[in-house]
Amino acid sequence: MTAQDSTQTPAAHSIRDGAFGHATGLSCRECGATQELGPHYVCSDCFGPLEISYDFPAVTREQIEAGPSNIWRYKALLPVPDDIETSPNLEPGFTRLLRADNLAAELGLTKLWVKDDSTNPTNSFKDRVVACALSAARELGSRVFACPSTGNLANAVAAAGARAGIKTVVFIPSNLETPKQVNSAVYTENLIAVDGNYDDVNKLASEIAGEQDGWAFVNVNVRPFYAEGSKTLGYEIAEQLGWRLPDQIVIPVASGSQLTKVHKAFRELVALGLVEDKPVKIYGAQATGCSPVSEAFRQGWDAIKPVRPDTIAKSLAIGNPADGIYVLDICRETGGAVADISDDEVRDAIVLLARTEGIFTETAGGTTVGVLKKLVETGVLDPELETVVINTGHGLKTLDAVTSLVGPAATIAPTYQAFVDADIV
Amino acid sequence: MTAQDSTQTPAAHSIRDGAFGHATGLSCRECGATQELGPHYVCSDCFGPLEISYDFPAVTREQIEAGPSNIWRYKALLPVPDDIETSPNLEPGFTRLLRADNLAAELGLTKLWVKDDSTNPTNSFKDRVVACALSAARELGSRVFACPSTGNLANAVAAAGARAGIKTVVFIPSNLETPKQVNSAVYTENLIAVDGNYDDVNKLASEIAGEQDGWAFVNVNVRPFYAEGSKTLGYEIAEQLGWRLPDQIVIPVASGSQLTKVHKAFRELVALGLVEDKPVKIYGAQATGCSPVSEAFRQGWDAIKPVRPDTIAKSLAIGNPADGIYVLDICRETGGAVADISDDEVRDAIVLLARTEGIFTETAGGTTVGVLKKLVETGVLDPELETVVINTGHGLKTLDAVTSLVGPAATIAPTYQAFVDADIV
Repeated sequence: MTAQDSTQTPAAHSIRDGAFGHATGLSCRECGATQELGPHYVCSDCFGPLEISYDFPAVTREQIEAGPSNIWRYKALLPVPDDIETSPNLEPGFTRLLRADNLAAELGLTKLWVKDDSTNPTNSFKDRVVACALSAARELGSRVFACPSTGNLANAVAAAGARAGIKTVVFIPSNLETPKQVNSAVYTENLIAVDGNYDDVNKLASEIAGEQDGWAFVNVNVRPFYAEGSKTLGYEIAEQLGWRLPDQIVIPVASGSQLTKVHKAFRELVALGLVEDKPVKIYGAQATGCSPVSEAFRQGWDAIKPVRPDTIAKSLAIGNPADGIYVLDICRETGGAVADISDDEVRDAIVLLARTEGIFTETAGGTTVGVLKKLVETGVLDPELETVVINTGHGLKTLDAVTSLVGPAATIAPTYQAFVDADIV
Repeated sequence: MTAQDSTQTPAAHSIRDGAFGHATGLSCRECGATQELGPHYVCSDCFGPLEISYDFPAVTREQIEAGPSNIWRYKALLPVPDDIETSPNLEPGFTRLLRADNLAAELGLTKLWVKDDSTNPTNSFKDRVVACALSAARELGSRVFACPSTGNLANAVAAAGARAGIKTVVFIPSNLETPKQVNSAVYTENLIAVDGNYDDVNKLASEIAGEQDGWAFVNVNVRPFYAEGSKTLGYEIAEQLGWRLPDQIVIPVASGSQLTKVHKAFRELVALGLVEDKPVKIYGAQATGCSPVSEAFRQGWDAIKPVRPDTIAKSLAIGNPADGIYVLDICRETGGAVADISDDEVRDAIVLLARTEGIFTETAGGTTVGVLKKLVETGVLDPELETVVINTGHGLKTLDAVTSLVGPAATIAPTYQAFVDADIV
C-alpha cells in the first residue's frame, strides 16, 4: 500500500448538515472574497488568509453555563457540530482564572488575574485549537490528522488523534532533544523525524497537504477551523470574570493568531449581548530573540520584517508571523502595545510566577509575565486597571530554562541537630 | 534569628469557630477514642491512626453543582471552613472523567472510565490533599508548611505554599535527580537536600514536627486533615457519572490512604442520600517491586509484611504502608482484590493508555492501568461491569520510564519524494 492509496479521501464523502455548526463560509481577511467551508486556508483570489464567518443564533449566559466544563460550552460560537461532545476528544478548556494578588503586589498592579492553560490535557493552549481542527478533520472525512511541530502542538495533535482513533502523523526536526520526542511519541506510532530545521519540516508539511488528499494538517489546510479554538480563551476569561471584560490583557505572540482570536472573542461577546461593551487594551508579548512584531510596533511600521529566531522561548519562535500585521492593528487600535524582553528576563519571570502564585509556566508564559513587568516598569501599562495575563503552557516541558536558577538552599545531614544548625527559617 | 524563634506558634492563636467546617473531632481507627481537632495524628491512648469525624448537615446535589469547578464544591464534606474559596489556594480538582472506549476495547471491558488527575495544578492528585492540609495549617496558625517527598507531594506543597504566602520548606534526599529538584525548587526558596535516603528524610520530618511548634508537615502532624482531600476523587467520580456509583474501581496503593478515602467518600454519599446504595468492588494496584499489600492479599494475611521498595513506580514505593491493613479489609469486604505487575508491564501500560486515550500517565498510573489489564486477563475482575480506573499523575514527571519504548518511526530527508518513499501510512 502506498501513501497515496491509504490516504485518499473516499470519493463518496459528503459533508453532513450542521457539520460546522453556525459557520457559514470562509472569508478572506484581505479582500473579503468568500468561499465554501472546506480544507482551504488561502483566498483563491488574492492568497490572503481565510477566516470562518458565522450566522450566530441567540445565545444566553444560562445556556453556556449549563454546558460542560470544557470548551464545548461555547460550541454555538465555534465551527463544530451540535453533537461535538459525543465524539471522543480531550475535552480541553475551562481552565483556572486565578486572582494573582501576590504577583500583582510584586509588580505594583492593583488587580491581576492569570488565565492558566498549563492544566489543559496536554498542558498547553494548543489542546483548544487542536480540538477544533479535529472536529473539522472528522467532518471533512480526513483520513490522517497531522502537524509539523517541535513541541506543544505535536503533543496536542498526537494525543487528540489517539483518543479520536484517527491515524496521526507528527513531523519534527530530527535533532529535537529526546525528552521532547518522547512527549509526542508516547501518543503516536507515527512520529516522523525530518533531517532539517523547523522551516524545512513546515515546508514539507505544506507540500504534503497540497499533494495528498485526506490529510488534515491542523495548522495548514484546516487552519481556519483550528485558529477559532483560541477564541475560547477570551470567552472563558469573560465568563470567569462574571460575564464582563477586563480593562487590559497581555497575550504572547508567536504567529499572532491567539491575540487576534481573543480580541475577536471579546467583540463577539459584545455583539451577542453577553457582556457589556467597554475599552479593552490588548498587549502582545515577545522574546527579544524573536520579536518582529514588537520591532514593527516600536518602529511604527505597518509590515513585519521577518527575523531568524534565537531565543529560549521556542514555542514563540516564529520569525515570520502570519498574523503579525493584525496584531499590530489590534494593539494600536485598542491603545495597547507590543513589547519584548531578554531570555534572562524570561527565566526570571518563570521563577517569579512560580514563587508568587504556584504556577510553573514554560518559556512562553515567562515571556508574557516578564513583558507585563516591563510594561509596568516603563509606564506603558496603567497599573490601576484590571489586568489579565495568559499562561499558555507548562514549565515541565521547558525545564532546562530554569535549571541554572533554582535548587536546594542547603544540604544537611539527616539529624535534628543538623536541621537546627542550618537555621533554615 | 534561630529556627525556634521564627517558627513559634503565637501563644495567642485561637482556633476560630467553623475553622474545620462540620468536622467534630479526631477519632482513633483502632480503639475509637476521640480527641479535639488539632495537629495530632496518633491516638493518645493506643497510638492508632486518627481520622476526622463529622456531623454533616443536609447537602443536596443542587448545592454541590452550584459550587466552583474544583474540590471546594464539596466543602461541606471536608474539614475546611465555609469561606475556604476566599483564601488563596491552587483550586485543584474537578478533573476530567473520560469515557475510555478505546482502552476498554483493548482490554475487553464493556464500559470503562478514566478519572484523570494528571491535569491538576501540579499534575497529580496530591493537590487535593495538600489543599486540605493547607487549610488546616492556616486555621491552626502554623507558620511553616512542609513535607518530606521525592516528587509529587513536594511539587504540590511548594506550589500551594507559594500561592498561599506561607513559608514553605520541602525536604528531599540529596541524591534526587536534578530535574526533580527543579520541579519543586522553582516554587520555593527552601528546598532542603538531606544526605540520606527517603526513610531518613521522613524520619527527620517527624522529629522536626515533634520538636518544633508552628510547623505543619502535611503528611505527618496534619495528616488526618490532609488525607480527607482524597475523598474528593470519590465524590467527583459519582457526580460525573450522573450521581451514581460505578460497579468497580481500580486505585493505586502507596500508603493505601487514597483507596480507603475513595471508599469512605462513596459510603458518605450513600449515607447523605446523594447516590443510591449499590455494591462497589474496590481493587488495589501495586508494582511488584513494592507490593506488600498485594502479597498480604494473595497470602490471606491480616498484617502487612514491610518490604524494601525496588520499582520504577517511585510514587507508590512505600514499603510499610500505613493504611495497608485497611486496604485489605475494604478490598476483601467489597469483593475486590489487590494485585501487582512488573516494571515492564508498568511501562507498557503507560504507552497503552497514551496510544488509546491520549492520556500520558506517570508510573503510578501505568501500574493502575496495567493491574486492570491483568485483573481482566486472570478473570479476577468481571469485564461486563462498569469500571473506573484512577490516573493519579502525569507522565512528564517520569519521562525516563518510557524513553526506551517510544521514538520516531522513521527519519527522512526534507523532501516530498522522501516522504512518499517512506510509505508512512
